[in-house]
Amino acid sequence: MAKAPILTPRADDFPRWYQDLTAKAELADNGPVRGTMVIRPYGYGLWERMQAEMDARIKETGTQNAYFPLLIPQSYLTKEADHVEGFAPELAVVTHGGGKELEEPAVVRPTSETIINDYFSKWVQSYRDLPLLINQWANVVRWELRPRLFLRTSEFLWQEGHTAHATYEEAREFAALVQREVYGDFLENVLAMDFVSGRKTVKERFAGAVNTLTLESMMGDGKALQMVTSHELGQNFAKAFNTRYLSKDSTQEYVWQTSWGSTTRMIGALVMTHGDDDGLRVPPRLAQIQAVVLAIKDDEAVLAKVREIGDRLKAAGIRVRVDDRTDTPFGRRSVDWELKGIPVRIEIGPRDLENGTAMLARRIPGGTSQAFSSGGGKEPVALDALADLLPAILEEDQALLLRQSRERRESRTTDVATIGEAVEAVTAGGWARIPWAVLGERGEAELAEHAVTVRCLVAADGSVPDDGDAPGNVAVVARAY
Amino acid sequence: MAKAPILTPRADDFPRWYQDLTAKAELADNGPVRGTMVIRPYGYGLWERMQAEMDARIKETGTQNAYFPLLIPQSYLTKEADHVEGFAPELAVVTHGGGKELEEPAVVRPTSETIINDYFSKWVQSYRDLPLLINQWANVVRWELRPRLFLRTSEFLWQEGHTAHATYEEAREFAALVQREVYGDFLENVLAMDFVSGRKTVKERFAGAVNTLTLESMMGDGKALQMVTSHELGQNFAKAFNTRYLSKDSTQEYVWQTSWGSTTRMIGALVMTHGDDDGLRVPPRLAQIQAVVLAIKDDEAVLAKVREIGDRLKAAGIRVRVDDRTDTPFGRRSVDWELKGIPVRIEIGPRDLENGTAMLARRIPGGTSQAFSSGGGKEPVALDALADLLPAILEEDQALLLRQSRERRESRTTDVATIGEAVEAVTAGGWARIPWAVLGERGEAELAEHAVTVRCLVAADGSVPDDGDAPGNVAVVARAY
Repeated sequence: MAKAPILTPRADDFPRWYQDLTAKAELADNGPVRGTMVIRPYGYGLWERMQAEMDARIKETGTQNAYFPLLIPQSYLTKEADHVEGFAPELAVVTHGGGKELEEPAVVRPTSETIINDYFSKWVQSYRDLPLLINQWANVVRWELRPRLFLRTSEFLWQEGHTAHATYEEAREFAALVQREVYGDFLENVLAMDFVSGRKTVKERFAGAVNTLTLESMMGDGKALQMVTSHELGQNFAKAFNTRYLSKDSTQEYVWQTSWGSTTRMIGALVMTHGDDDGLRVPPRLAQIQAVVLAIKDDEAVLAKVREIGDRLKAAGIRVRVDDRTDTPFGRRSVDWELKGIPVRIEIGPRDLENGTAMLARRIPGGTSQAFSSGGGKEPVALDALADLLPAILEEDQALLLRQSRERRESRTTDVATIGEAVEAVTAGGWARIPWAVLGERGEAELAEHAVTVRCLVAADGSVPDDGDAPGNVAVVARAY
Repeated sequence: MAKAPILTPRADDFPRWYQDLTAKAELADNGPVRGTMVIRPYGYGLWERMQAEMDARIKETGTQNAYFPLLIPQSYLTKEADHVEGFAPELAVVTHGGGKELEEPAVVRPTSETIINDYFSKWVQSYRDLPLLINQWANVVRWELRPRLFLRTSEFLWQEGHTAHATYEEAREFAALVQREVYGDFLENVLAMDFVSGRKTVKERFAGAVNTLTLESMMGDGKALQMVTSHELGQNFAKAFNTRYLSKDSTQEYVWQTSWGSTTRMIGALVMTHGDDDGLRVPPRLAQIQAVVLAIKDDEAVLAKVREIGDRLKAAGIRVRVDDRTDTPFGRRSVDWELKGIPVRIEIGPRDLENGTAMLARRIPGGTSQAFSSGGGKEPVALDALADLLPAILEEDQALLLRQSRERRESRTTDVATIGEAVEAVTAGGWARIPWAVLGERGEAELAEHAVTVRCLVAADGSVPDDGDAPGNVAVVARAY
């Protein structure tokens, strides 16, 4: 008996599927002010886990967290010419405070380079104060005319790293380190997401940067999503804010800077990468709930057993939730956990108790239509075996998600030789790789007419190029979120 | 040889001492927009530890974190009459977004009762959806005309809990539970701060609440500081936003609500409670750095040893920092850690190595003038004994701070019988306790003329009164931050 689809199937209407999923898995709602969002507890739980994993990696680089004000004097934004040009159209402006019109309007931070540099210029005096490695977890506002939950919202949550170094080389290496060991490692080993690591073209750079590094991932519909970026700022902000240090040779030198960020849009990327027609699939290492133990019926022995199994799995280091809400029909609860993408469901009813087993359902390998032996479906498992079995299953499913994500990108990326072929490949629902020497800035502008952008440049050997115009560079082009 | 004071002594000028300390211990700076602040890494590290400890206690109550928008349509604020009256004078208003004037101005949240109720009214349908227990970690803005770092700032960081319950009793019990098991436990067992737990008078209630519970602590100068509050909101917001549920008896009922918050002002309270003329003293359970291991000289064997000791203490579960920055004079580093209030300093130089010892300095029991045997000063300790010794020392110092805080409040609180005596006791630098039956609302107004407020009402037996006007209630009155 086929069940009626709860979500619009992806193949029918991908954006609608995304909308259905974020609503029905209770990830987020639209906020009342245009483009804002309410992140619901289940969605926010994903963000909390992302924060914990990222924060540990950020601190591992020697970076410390701090907090800078939400409100920035409007004049600060104008100090770096490219920066203000990039952000001016997106600003939210506070004109009144405490019942009075402000002498100088304040902008709600769209990013914090300017205000942070104001303080860096006070804190940095000597080479001994360098490197200065600061990160901030905060909300930012960039007015959004075509909002979409998580992907483009007028307010979003993020972390923004800001560092100051004594030399160009050190700043450059730090931007690359963050890209690789904070972001790359997190995406691959926690989010189970494949990506291409590259360099932005001049046109796509961050407003105020001299170089932007990016990780780009392919979503379920073949579009690209910029996951994270890491910028070399050169001395642009240092000069605008006079951030200088006394060198060992007693000369005054401008610092070299980086900034780097990742946002709640990663939640949207997670949905569009691992989601299927039954809902979300959360990578086990990220999941705030790795296994849910469900009581099928309101039966005293069953309730006692689900709680006992819950405690045993918890003791085995698994993040577990006991679902004993038997006043809600079992089928409804089961579908709800499936929608939310909990990796493993353990279902226990009176008959299971007699057999000393539970039904074990794996969300990630596939729906109930797949055989358990091939990694999918549902199968009875001895209750006593669960604590031993689960860690291996969870790691297997983590690896499967990464593999599927990688296979998607590889199978849907086409090497092309002309701009026409690139547009064709992208229109067919994938990415194209085209030599940058063929494309160039003129070709980039031509692609833009087809809503296709250069996601990044990669070197011939797949590495991140030191020079955007190096011979052999390949442009990865796609439609993007 | 007496050293010149680094901070203005508390006895000379307490506010100036506070300002000196927050600056020199690198806790925070003033922001460029009036009343805002920059929380520097060391200050933010205190907040991160507070968050971790509080968050665990909040989740223990079954509450989940979520995130609601920063910007609230101005019209929302006006839906609850007392609420808008309380907050209107403090609002920051966004009038322009994305280069255009907004159709309806948005306020930067001063607190989130209104916007959260808008969603509660959508999410709550049935008794099965209750209790709904939500917490948010966020920034809020309340325009501040007389700002002081951490204590009164135009933007501050906080957590705000918001819950909806089926009955009055359940809501009331939840507000009390949070007050006791989240806030009270945290203050006593982590911040090592004494407090009086009581009930606000009608005049001092939160705008929109039917009852406000508070924890009030005495600062080093004898003034009071409201540490945290927990409000019973009754059905005020439920009626304003039509937040109703279908009961088991199939009737539509308004929910009963609570809200409760704690803010970065706790950092200011920490300073003013445990700080002394040498700087901050951080309770060991809170400290992000419990012990610092300092290399006195740039000597290879010394550097190797401080790193080894650092690793050994870390392995023993102590939060440790190795200070091997020998290009900065030892004395300057030592004073800096003292200012920052690190509980234990372990100093190692070449002579110590010969003896197999380190100099151990305890920050909390007192300065170097006190003998080690009485718990203060500096004394050589065998290197091999450190890992065993430290946990006990840290717990001893944690207990000492709480005891000192309690003794201060007890010794500086006076029971009085008249309003005149109350003003006298408060003016002498302490708190007064006066029967509420003697004081009453008229007396409360009279005290206000002397800048003295009722911090809270407590029952005759010291418990939190169920009824503000119960006979035997005592008003605790003080000057307050």
